[in-house]
This record gives sequence, structure tokens and C-alpha cells, in this order.
Amino acid sequence: MKRLGILGGGQLARMMALAAAPLGVPVVALDPSREACAGQVVPLVAGGYDDRAALEEFAGRVDVATFDFENVPAGSGDWLRSHVEVHPGPGALATAQDRLSEKRLFRELGIPVPAFADIDCRDALARAVDEIGLPSILKTRRLGYDGKGQFRLRPEMGAGAAEAAWDALGAQVDRTGLILEGFVPFDFELSVVAVRSRDGDFRTWAPTRNWHVDGVLSASLAPAGLDPELEARAIGHARRLAEALDYVGVFALELFCRDGELLANEMAPRVHNSGHWTIEGAETSQFENHVRAVLGLPLGSTASLGHACMLNWLGAMPDPAPVLAQPGGHWHDYGKSAREGRKVGHATLRADSAGELASSLEAVGAALDRHDQVAPVLEKLRG
Amino acid sequence: MKRLGILGGGQLARMMALAAAPLGVPVVALDPSREACAGQVVPLVAGGYDDRAALEEFAGRVDVATFDFENVPAGSGDWLRSHVEVHPGPGALATAQDRLSEKRLFRELGIPVPAFADIDCRDALARAVDEIGLPSILKTRRLGYDGKGQFRLRPEMGAGAAEAAWDALGAQVDRTGLILEGFVPFDFELSVVAVRSRDGDFRTWAPTRNWHVDGVLSASLAPAGLDPELEARAIGHARRLAEALDYVGVFALELFCRDGELLANEMAPRVHNSGHWTIEGAETSQFENHVRAVLGLPLGSTASLGHACMLNWLGAMPDPAPVLAQPGGHWHDYGKSAREGRKVGHATLRADSAGELASSLEAVGAALDRHDQVAPVLEKLRG
Ligand SMILES: Nc1ncnc2c1ncn2[C@@H]1O[C@H](COP(=O)(O)OP(=O)(O)OP(=O)(O)O)[C@@H](O)[C@H]1O
Ligand SMILES: Nc1ncnc2c1ncn2[C@@H]1O[C@H](COP(=O)(O)OP(=O)(O)OP(=O)(O)O)[C@@H](O)[C@H]1O
Ligand SMILES: [Mg+2]
Ligand SMILES: [Mg+2]
Repeated sequence: MKRLGILGGGQLARMMALAAAPLGVPVVALDPSREACAGQVVPLVAGGYDDRAALEEFAGRVDVATFDFENVPAGSGDWLRSHVEVHPGPGALATAQDRLSEKRLFRELGIPVPAFADIDCRDALARAVDEIGLPSILKTRRLGYDGKGQFRLRPEMGAGAAEAAWDALGAQVDRTGLILEGFVPFDFELSVVAVRSRDGDFRTWAPTRNWHVDGVLSASLAPAGLDPELEARAIGHARRLAEALDYVGVFALELFCRDGELLANEMAPRVHNSGHWTIEGAETSQFENHVRAVLGLPLGSTASLGHACMLNWLGAMPDPAPVLAQPGGHWHDYGKSAREGRKVGHATLRADSAGELASSLEAVGAALDRHDQVAPVLEKLRG
Repeated sequence: MKRLGILGGGQLARMMALAAAPLGVPVVALDPSREACAGQVVPLVAGGYDDRAALEEFAGRVDVATFDFENVPAGSGDWLRSHVEVHPGPGALATAQDRLSEKRLFRELGIPVPAFADIDCRDALARAVDEIGLPSILKTRRLGYDGKGQFRLRPEMGAGAAEAAWDALGAQVDRTGLILEGFVPFDFELSVVAVRSRDGDFRTWAPTRNWHVDGVLSASLAPAGLDPELEARAIGHARRLAEALDYVGVFALELFCRDGELLANEMAPRVHNSGHWTIEGAETSQFENHVRAVLGLPLGSTASLGHACMLNWLGAMPDPAPVLAQPGGHWHDYGKSAREGRKVGHATLRADSAGELASSLEAVGAALDRHDQVAPVLEKLRG
């Protein structure tokens, strides 16, 4: 079996490694931190993503490389590609690293997007705010994650909005670029987690409904209970994107839905937090299918096994007992130390019916005193 | 989270460790061999089961210990119990290590068993063969596994049978003891894989139908398509056994079925090969529930997810592609080097219906040229 290398050693690498083990695939992760949590389950090469010596050691120990973290410098990706196979490819990665090229590609492919404008100076921002209006969001083009590198321009800020936004993010314009996006007053958010093999086999898991709090994923539900036409449209967008990029591996397409319209927010060129439920809620998990895809193995079925809800744990792990006491309660502790806002683990509740899932979810919400986290999901399940 | 130690570092330890990782449970295994395959996924303490220094190092790194290999010397178990929590307990282990005490306990509990006799010398064997008749099987009381340490006394051996059996195993009588068992011309074999928590919560997975070749498990099917009364009886036997032993963790009870009668063959005081299908075919796997039980966490549901068939790979791993190409095909490579007769991996096929499972199984049997291995399972699924 070929050896797999993962750039980045966070929870995504950790879960990929756990999925790779039964396949007999040896895994090594590269991470700037010796404490990276994937290091608890596979050997870690400690070194920066641009540390040539570390990359050389890593390359010498793997046959195929992939990503837990997509913001690896392009130079390192190129160097690596000259030594080992790397999936996804450089085009997909470059596109997904930049909100502007991503949105331009979406538009080219006929995938609707929110209004957006490239911001390269204070004046450009002022003009874009005039054009796009308020509310809107100023984001770094590159290196943002979990809602970081964003500033919301609210209507109540009035004429001072552009000024405030520039004060917050203007200093980064040279390093990361900036983009202004119209704020979408969406009815709900969804994602399509999809996988494509080297020979073009394309599959998606059930489109997932997602709830964010302060820009960070809080809960996911699959199936999402969508209108079939809308679901097919979302999957079609993901397929066009995968084919345009000749994508290999798992990726997620994040979408806003408003009045039956779908607007693409961004793509993540890797396994995705909104696909964690697939570990227990689907025949083959996103982690296993990513490993299969990048290694050139046949893809597994992405069919759902009943209904699943994922709850993210941020900051510190709660007591596992109330989740484990549920019939379909599953626990994922990433082995990280506690830190404000940090993704430290998740739980997945699985059930054969939406009604049973709602009961489990309600019990967990009550026992862990997390009513706010479960309430929107319960409303959707019962509404 | 408490730290878990596993005595033995084979595939059972490896799969327990992979199930423990998402729970955030750090695992260490102790094994006489530095090459033990669990060492690819968790730290290994290399040392014999009676190596006090190794046991001390192991004990210092764990809070709770359990077994991948039950034939650990009683002295080591006792020493370990004086330093860390150990599950299952000494009584369960001692009973399960000895086919004679096991069968006596079954009988006491009203669990029918084949005819058997304690053999402590050549004469005792001759008398027992007269009484039990042919065919019968001479087995070592202790240390047997995968059909090793057994001699079959066949009718065609006639008066020379006892002689031949003693020639084969008599030399071991002092070290391992011997037992003669009447050979059961069973209609089929089944097992009940069960789990019991520290507070007495008892659960079983769907009783499993098993096919052996040369005394080694070849294929398992669950659910087994049993008559409900028979199934309830099998589960009742497992429950009585668990309660009598105040058992904590997973165990398997192996049974023969003949003319609607159930005869207990043996118990395994650990996760069991006939429960490997639970990784994909049940809400919670035997591995995860064993970890939960010994750590005192709530047990997960043991409900089946559709129909599952496990195929054992002995000697060398076949090509994974035909299995992975099936919709519910799952692969388990234990990371061992190839060796005649060695358990090196398994595949599980899962499907929503018996018919779909049969189709997958047939395709795999054909692609891997393993008609003999799949034929009896197919016959059962379609018969
Ligand atoms: N244009 C927008 N209109 C409305 N809400 C938005 C918009 N952009 C972002 N958001 C909200 O903020 C969340 C995070 O934004 P985005 O996906 O751009 O950030 P990110 O840093 O890439 O986060 P993640 O890594 O979690 O995907 C979105 O899921 C959505 O809830
Ligand atoms: N008394 C018996 N009558 C008929 N068949 C038997 C008998 N004892 C053993 N066998 C056959 O041999 C197989 C292995 O025997 P047994 O379970 O005693 O051995 P083991 O070494 O403990 O194997 P394992 O570790 O695989 O359970 C049984 O599953 C059965 O197929
Ligand atoms: Mg996002
Ligand atoms: Mg047996």
C-alpha cells in the first residue's frame, strides 16, 4: 500500500489517519507544531510549511501527499509535486486559497455568488461599499478560516463603515488581499461535501444544513430536508466545480440559500467540518473516501445511514457521558488542550428517523446545558 | 480521560486502539514482539507477559488494563491488579483460560455442552474415548487458539484413535492439561458477542453465524437469520454467563446448533473475530463498547445497521480493489507481514438487505477467486 503524507497535523489529519489505518496505509503528518494533535496517532515531522529540510524528510517518507491545511505556500506545494504525487492539484489549491479567484470561477461556471469586489486600497473599498451597500463583509482574500480575517460592515455604522473596516483589515491588504462581499440575509446555510476520484468518479454525501455562531460552524444536520430540485442544483454546482478543477479528493462547497436561490460562499479543498457526521452517518466517511481518492483506490458509497447531527465543541470538551448514553451517540475528542474558541472535538448523534434524532438531541442539549446550540436543529427537525 | 493499557498487541489491540482514539483515550500495548501490529497505531512496551520490568513500565503508563490476548500468566494478572484497574476480572479470565472450568461453569449455569472429560493421563484418555465415543476431539485445556492444540479422533482410526491422539498431544498434559470433547455434528455454528458494563448493563450484538475452515474462522454473517426463540436462548446463555462471572467488557460465547439444540463450545474473554463486522454493521462496534465498558463509560447501542458479512484473510492480503468497489465494501489490513495461516486482515461487506449483501459477496468471491469462502454464506443468504 502506498504511504500517505498529510500537510498539517490538526484534527482533519487525525481523522484521515484513523480512516487510513484500516486500509493499511501508513501516514505521516507535517506540522509546524510538535504538539499537533494528529501526532497522537501517527508520526509527525515537525517543521514549517516552508522549511525545506522538513519537506525533504516528509517527502522521503511518503508516496502521495495531501492537505489538512490548504494555506500551504505555493512554492512548497510546487517543490513537493516535483518529488511525490500531490492531491488535490495546484490549480484547485490556488483557486481555493483565494476568495477572489474562487468567486470568479464560480461565476464563470454559472454558480451564482453574492455581490463582491476586489479591494486593493482604501478608495477601492469606499467605492465598493457605495456599490454593494450595507450590510456587507470585508474579508481577507487569503488565509482566513473559522470567520477570522473578517469585518462586518453594519447598516448602523452608516457613512463610517468603510473607514472602520479599513481600520480593522486595511493593514493586511498587501499580505492577504481583501474582498468585499454583500451580506446575504440567507434563510439557511448548506454545504455539499463531495469526492472525485482520479478517473473522474464523482460522488456527494447528502447535502448538509449548517448553523454557524460568530462565523464558526456550530451544528450540522444531514440529510438537510431540502427540496429535491434545490438539492440537485447544489450537487450540480459541486460537480461542475470538481470537473472544472479536475479535482481529486474530498472538497466542500458552502452555499447560502435565500428564497430558493443558492449563492456560493466558498469552497474548502479538503475534508470539511460539515462532513464530520459521515463517520457514523454514511456508508463511507469523507475521511476514508479522501484517502481512497488520493491513493487511486475505488471510492466507497456515500449513501447516508439514517439521520445525523454533528455538534462542534469549541474551547473545551464537555462531559462525554450524556452523548455516549444516547443510543446513536458518538464522541470525537481531538486530544487538544482547551483554549478559547478552539475546535477541540465534536459529537455525532445518529438515528434511524428524524424523530429519534430530535429526541437524542434534546436530551443532549438539556444534559449539557447547550439549549442554544441544539435549538435551531431541533426546530428544523420538528418544524 | 483515563489511559488504557492492552496486554497483547495484535489485531484486536490495534482495532481497540483505533476505537479508543476518537474517545480521546490514550492507549499503550504490551507485547513480547517489537513487531506487534498494534505498534503501528499506539506506543508499544516490548516485553514478555511475565517480564516484571515491562509490566512495571506498562502499569506506570496506564490507568486501566485489558486484554487482546487472554493467556497472560495469572501471576502477571494479579500483580497488575495490585497496581491498576484490570477488566475483565481474574475469575472470568481464569475460567475462560481453561476449557475444563469453562465447560463446568456452562453446565452449572444450565448451558448445555458437548460430552467432555478431563484427561490427565493416557488411561484417562482411553476410558474417555470408550465413554464419549468417536468422532471426538482431544484439546489442550489451556493456550489453544485458532484450532491449534487439537487432535481429531476420527471413526476410521478405530481402536488406534486414543493412541494417535495421545501421541499428538500427550506430551503437553502437564503444561496445558487436556480435555476430550464429543465431536458435535452441528448444523451450524453461531456466536453471541456481548458486552457488560461495570454497573451491569448487558447488551449483545445480533447473534452471528460463523463458518470455520480447519478450525479457523473463515466467514461470519449477521444477522444470522435465526429462529427468534433460538436467538433468545443463545442470548440468555450469554447473559447468565456474564452475570455469573460479574463480567466487565466484551466477550464471545461460541455455540454449536444441532437439531434446534444449542451446545456451548467456549467463551473468549475479549473482543472476538466473529464480532469484527460490528465496526461497520452496528451502531457501536465491539471494540468501542469494550473500551467504554472497561473505562466505565456508558455503553453504545449494539443495534445492527442492515446486514453484514465478514471474510477473514489468512496468510496474505488479497487485492483490496474488488472489495472497495462494492457499495458497502470495507477493508481491514492489520499491517502484518504475510505468513502461512496467519490472520492478516478481513473485509466486511454491509448492505441494507440480504439480497444486496449476496450480490456484493458473489462479486467479491468471483473477483478474488474465493468461491469456496463465500459459497456457504451465499447459500445461507439465498437459501
Ligand atoms: N457574504 C456573507 N453573507 C452572510 N453571511 C456570511 C457571508 N460571509 C460569511 N458569512 C457567515 O460567516 C460564516 C463564515 O464565513 P466564511 O465561510 O467566509 O469564513 P471562513 O473563515 O472560511 O470559515 P470556515 O473556515 O468556518 O468556513 C459563514 O458560514 C456565514 O455564516
Ligand atoms: N466438539 C466439537 N465438535 C465439532 N466441532 C468442533 C468441536 N470443537 C471444535 N470444533 C470446530 O473447531 C473450531 C475451533 O475450535 P475451538 O473453538 O475449540 O478452537 P479455538 O482454538 O479456541 O479456536 P478459536 O480461537 O478460533 O475460537 C470450532 O469453531 C468448530 O468448528
Ligand atoms: Mg466557510
Ligand atoms: Mg473457538
